[in-house]
Amino acid sequence: SGLRRGGGATDVQGDGWGIGFFEGKGARLFRDPLPSAHSPLAEFMRTYPIHSLNVVAHIRKATEGSVALENTHPFMREQWGRHWLFAHNGHLPHFQPPLDGSFTPVGGTDSEWVFCWILQSLRQRFGATPPAPAELFDGLRELTLQFAELGICNFLLSNGEVMVAHCSTRLSYIVRQAPFGEAHLMDEDMTVDFRELTTPSDRVAVITSLPLTDNEAWVDMRPGTLWMFQDGEVVAQ
Amino acid sequence: SGLRRGGGATDVQGDGWGIGFFEGKGARLFRDPLPSAHSPLAEFMRTYPIHSLNVVAHIRKATEGSVALENTHPFMREQWGRHWLFAHNGHLPHFQPPLDGSFTPVGGTDSEWVFCWILQSLRQRFGATPPAPAELFDGLRELTLQFAELGICNFLLSNGEVMVAHCSTRLSYIVRQAPFGEAHLMDEDMTVDFRELTTPSDRVAVITSLPLTDNEAWVDMRPGTLWMFQDGEVVAQ
Repeated sequence: SGLRRGGGATDVQGDGWGIGFFEGKGARLFRDPLPSAHSPLAEFMRTYPIHSLNVVAHIRKATEGSVALENTHPFMREQWGRHWLFAHNGHLPHFQPPLDGSFTPVGGTDSEWVFCWILQSLRQRFGATPPAPAELFDGLRELTLQFAELGICNFLLSNGEVMVAHCSTRLSYIVRQAPFGEAHLMDEDMTVDFRELTTPSDRVAVITSLPLTDNEAWVDMRPGTLWMFQDGEVVAQ
Repeated sequence: SGLRRGGGATDVQGDGWGIGFFEGKGARLFRDPLPSAHSPLAEFMRTYPIHSLNVVAHIRKATEGSVALENTHPFMREQWGRHWLFAHNGHLPHFQPPLDGSFTPVGGTDSEWVFCWILQSLRQRFGATPPAPAELFDGLRELTLQFAELGICNFLLSNGEVMVAHCSTRLSYIVRQAPFGEAHLMDEDMTVDFRELTTPSDRVAVITSLPLTDNEAWVDMRPGTLWMFQDGEVVAQ
């Protein structure tokens, strides 16, 4: 509900929206260059039962690249037999390192370019053998340092196993686990009681540009930090 | 309507369905391992206004690989900055040439394997420069001959610019253009009057496993032939 209103109703980021999520090894991607508040697909998503361990959602404010489907986040590619999803919040126009053709942007955004470069660089580093999560984190830390100072690049990246978040300017997260309580949405008068929706063993991490609720203890990530989440908790930072 | 009923209602291919289509350079992919007759997503698609120059749709009867999202056609990858969609009807279990990691199957189907091999082989043949349609056709003809005799592989492949169809056992097509007439669906009592829906300059090619209508002149492709369509007409065969 908050995502749908966020895309064109409650703030200015109305240049498209997208949500990608894994179902097992498969992934689904629903995107629209229409503001989410006016998108029939977004209305359908509101009722779609998402059962997923890793979800990446994004509302776009276009900086580089036209308002078009191919420029709408999240972007998706396959590497090592897994889908990878990437969403970027920021502006990174001065980072266009050469691409060797392993991954090529379909659209015209700085975001898809850096995503292609990250995947290409991971491939160069690890070759045919997919890295374990800790190795992946080390690789991403080194790669992120190469562009972190060149612009604004808050990003989320997931391969369905882990969720990696880079805080360039602002990013917050919360881990919800037992004992669960109530959460009240920041932007509208809507409360969710997680006690009615969870079991004691559930755990979920939510990472956002700004806290979504006004009665929970969100953690503000420090600018210039990289985080890895798995199974709803921080596993590297 | 025919596609939706085809997936679980009027015949046995109830192991999932999918439709992928281009909107400009972008592509959308809607897939479900549920039979289309019982899929909420298929119901949504029935009302979705598809405006696309190239569409690939598929109803699955599982032969290799479990009934799961990652094994549901069409499959999608990016090469040369374009999305590629692939759907396969048949069974090709004895063709598993080595893959070099450029493209790796996410699921466990023979279909995704051959798709990855085709893209890898095109890359090896053409390098960094995307081929023109005629060159692409020549490349695909040579590649297809390497597996055509090893099993059944009716396939559709599109990069958003052209649509390539390989007839291994059965495939039919029709080109609809002015003067338009009425079409009557084969499997149910439903008639579409294209005179009400078209302009004189419209032209569309429809390629299917079996003719969809019983009052139009479908062309049965000869087994062992490869075809390329562009802008609604045959451009190579």
